[in-house]
Amino acid sequence: MTPDAVDPVEVLSEEECWNILLGATLGRLALSVANQPEIYPINFTAHDGRLLLRTNPGDKLFELTVNENVALETDGIGKQSVWSVVVKGKARQLESAAEIEAAERIPHQPLTSIRKRVFVEIVPTSITGRRLNRGPENDELTASDLY
Amino acid sequence: MTPDAVDPVEVLSEEECWNILLGATLGRLALSVANQPEIYPINFTAHDGRLLLRTNPGDKLFELTVNENVALETDGIGKQSVWSVVVKGKARQLESAAEIEAAERIPHQPLTSIRKRVFVEIVPTSITGRRLNRGPENDELTASDLY
Repeated sequence: MTPDAVDPVEVLSEEECWNILLGATLGRLALSVANQPEIYPINFTAHDGRLLLRTNPGDKLFELTVNENVALETDGIGKQSVWSVVVKGKARQLESAAEIEAAERIPHQPLTSIRKRVFVEIVPTSITGRRLNRGPENDELTASDLY
Repeated sequence: MTPDAVDPVEVLSEEECWNILLGATLGRLALSVANQPEIYPINFTAHDGRLLLRTNPGDKLFELTVNENVALETDGIGKQSVWSVVVKGKARQLESAAEIEAAERIPHQPLTSIRKRVFVEIVPTSITGRRLNRGPENDELTASDLY
């Protein structure tokens, strides 16, 4: 970067990150089992300071039971900027009837007719985000430029 | 699923996965350090059976040096279908002048004026992908339904 150049990367506040999370539905969930990384595209809903996933029994659910530590990323590209938010936190399957009933009442955008029977809640331990403002010389930028 | 329903999820062949990887530039890289998952949006180029990342010194580069095992995901949404491909493999920074020169000759789509000085190569150990065909009843499907 030359001395005159403006740093195109903006670190987002936690509030800005939440605004992005509240507007997002598609993310990718990174898990780790025996120090081996796993990654899955997932649908999520931000609600009340937490993230709610709907899923079904399978590898993903098993893995986050083995290691509750997860990292979830969502990104987007707008006309003015690109952005990415990463939430690290602890995941757990909702088990009590009261919790599941409460989760079922949270509005979400059903994206498929495939019924998802399991609720997983992520309680964040850290939230970080970056936004890269697109200038006239940056028309081809994508979220990949954030890192 | 009723007996008459068609399974909307299609498992992709390795060849189909490569075709998707060759056409993609944006992915997310999952790493694991001390069994803690990390996730980063990344730009990549598929070439000659491998994936090439351009990056700079930082957390991501440090972490994949500590644990070479990585998982990279890319997804997309088309009018007819949504898809996701996950590559698991081993990452290493290119170090010899010959390797770096060869990497610099690989065509890629520069997405930013930020110069990325380090090349990282991922040699796949497994490649899996799924495609979900969008029917008239599935207009709201996204890649999140793949899993």
